[in-house]
Amino acid sequence: MKKISILGSTGSIGRQTLDVVRSNRKDFSIIGLSGNHNIDLLEIQIREFKPEAAAVMDVEKALELSRRLGKFPTEILSGMEGLISIATMEDAELVVTSVVGMVGLLPTIEAIRSKKNIALANKETLVTAGELVMKEACNNQVKIIPVDSEHSAIFQCLKGYNLKEVDRIILTASGGPFRGFNKKQLESVSLEDALRHPKWNMGKKISIDSATLMNKGLEVIEAKWLFDLRMDQIEVIVHPQSIIHSMVEFVDSSILAQLGCPDMRVPIQFALTYPDRTENQLQRLDFSVLKELTFEKPDMESFPCLKLAIEAMHQGGSYPTVLNAANEVLVEQFLQRKIGFMDIPSQIAIALESNPFTKVKDIGEIIAIDQWTRDFVNNRLS
Amino acid sequence: MKKISILGSTGSIGRQTLDVVRSNRKDFSIIGLSGNHNIDLLEIQIREFKPEAAAVMDVEKALELSRRLGKFPTEILSGMEGLISIATMEDAELVVTSVVGMVGLLPTIEAIRSKKNIALANKETLVTAGELVMKEACNNQVKIIPVDSEHSAIFQCLKGYNLKEVDRIILTASGGPFRGFNKKQLESVSLEDALRHPKWNMGKKISIDSATLMNKGLEVIEAKWLFDLRMDQIEVIVHPQSIIHSMVEFVDSSILAQLGCPDMRVPIQFALTYPDRTENQLQRLDFSVLKELTFEKPDMESFPCLKLAIEAMHQGGSYPTVLNAANEVLVEQFLQRKIGFMDIPSQIAIALESNPFTKVKDIGEIIAIDQWTRDFVNNRLS
Repeated sequence: MKKISILGSTGSIGRQTLDVVRSNRKDFSIIGLSGNHNIDLLEIQIREFKPEAAAVMDVEKALELSRRLGKFPTEILSGMEGLISIATMEDAELVVTSVVGMVGLLPTIEAIRSKKNIALANKETLVTAGELVMKEACNNQVKIIPVDSEHSAIFQCLKGYNLKEVDRIILTASGGPFRGFNKKQLESVSLEDALRHPKWNMGKKISIDSATLMNKGLEVIEAKWLFDLRMDQIEVIVHPQSIIHSMVEFVDSSILAQLGCPDMRVPIQFALTYPDRTENQLQRLDFSVLKELTFEKPDMESFPCLKLAIEAMHQGGSYPTVLNAANEVLVEQFLQRKIGFMDIPSQIAIALESNPFTKVKDIGEIIAIDQWTRDFVNNRLS
Repeated sequence: MKKISILGSTGSIGRQTLDVVRSNRKDFSIIGLSGNHNIDLLEIQIREFKPEAAAVMDVEKALELSRRLGKFPTEILSGMEGLISIATMEDAELVVTSVVGMVGLLPTIEAIRSKKNIALANKETLVTAGELVMKEACNNQVKIIPVDSEHSAIFQCLKGYNLKEVDRIILTASGGPFRGFNKKQLESVSLEDALRHPKWNMGKKISIDSATLMNKGLEVIEAKWLFDLRMDQIEVIVHPQSIIHSMVEFVDSSILAQLGCPDMRVPIQFALTYPDRTENQLQRLDFSVLKELTFEKPDMESFPCLKLAIEAMHQGGSYPTVLNAANEVLVEQFLQRKIGFMDIPSQIAIALESNPFTKVKDIGEIIAIDQWTRDFVNNRLS
């Protein structure tokens, strides 16, 4: 029985992780959970999975949850300290990091230092601190198992092979809800349209990131660190059916691809059961119904976020941190209907141009750069 | 430096194997070659690769080759005995079995008994004697590495995984030159049309087998033995672009596929370098040029050979041997313009119905059943 704690159990990936655990009760036990503010759902999860401890970021809500649970034997913790406790529980063998945004960085680092294997669903950890995080993972002999469907696809293709045998990876992108739109059309898209992803049912932040293609940009950076690649080894191709989740081309020109119906429970389960695979009842792909898979180049002119991300990674150092922080603030503003869709890339570009930092030597500096960026972007918008 | 002998070096796979060796001179040395009757080419190969020994099936031609080579230090052998000598050379680490047809069976068995790893390009070995051959391989702890693009694709997808994790395999078929034809149209196709494969440049026997879809039928049987599957775990899907060479669906619904430009040198090289991959300069797949991959169900009514093969495998025992022998004779007759295209399936069906044998207990019986079938089919046609 593998003991698991989940950071961000009330979000989309967290909920689906619990779905997978629910279908494999004999294989897994949940010993820690954490949520941001949705204590209604967290309470239900706690009563069902009976973890040893659970954390709520918001201190007031943590108290409220504690009151509600009364004598229920789950310890309730709060704040970043609580989150770190959940990430480092002595008995945990695997920590699923599915919190959204920069807040996932510190707990992930602490989990690695406590020698926990990581099922990584928090992109920002590698985008902002990839070099440091992978170094910690290497030093602590910890496995970072990606949960993102694209990185999981590559991870699945690489099992049994050596990273030195890789020529390049091909990240597939659905193209999002606005595939084929030009810049002018994109200026007037609504929040509702942006949230309507054609293939994947996801959280709000990642849905907007998919609509701007920033999601693919963050994935390029994530892949670079996760698989120790040069930027020129990473290609992005638009594949609207979202059936091929990504591919690896080896040095002998042979390509392996991972395919399936778009269902996050597949990569989540793989991360949980790794290095094994276990049976499930999820939907199978039917090639006689599928008919066709198509491919096209991404349009980086209409979707500048992808280009900005690739350029930020080329510049290296603090740039990906600035890119990510600016994007987090701007997506939140767009979700609150305070800015337009195309303000996201244009304001990110300004933040990157104004970035006063160069190299990054530790997590403290990353947090400072992240904070500078948030202040900078918020000041411009206010 | 891996020492290799090649059975059938003058055929299509044999020549391409030597191409791969030519591009990787520091990794491989050729110590044995064999040909059927093309001694002009065999002589050139011998002078280039300087093997310790070479065999020619035809005794007269072997003498002629010996005369031509004069004092050249390669020993020339002949007949089945010569072929077996090449298959069992003391120093050989890998034997490439690329002879076409039933003649490959005995040398392959003898190579396995001499504990040589096999790069298997001779379908008939597993089609007629799969159970016995795989048992020998297991007892002698010998690796059977498939060279066929489809089986190599599956083999590549499975590396790093356990056969118990496989739910099913999906063999892709180009559909051959007559995809979309109905039975009536197929009755009047010419030899020239049948030899014109849309995607692969191959030998004559396999080109006709691809046109009738018997090739896919033989591959289903081969896959069953090679990967220890039940028949209901093997699906065939027509994929006209021949880019996805085959796929594996695991128990968790995740599918791995192997893709690439249609070039036999990729699976040949993988078999030679296994378990590693080495760099080459072969053509890379360009997804922005590729545009689309399509899939459709195979038409087993118009192409009865595929159905006959699957049924023969379901019946088991001697049936696949009869199927294969009848097909070999009939394809040869078609190549000599003595029968029509649709006579191939109809005469195979008659041979299968007339099959007096049931179980098969050793190689001797398989050879007897093979001979009975050849006589039976030839008698009917004369």
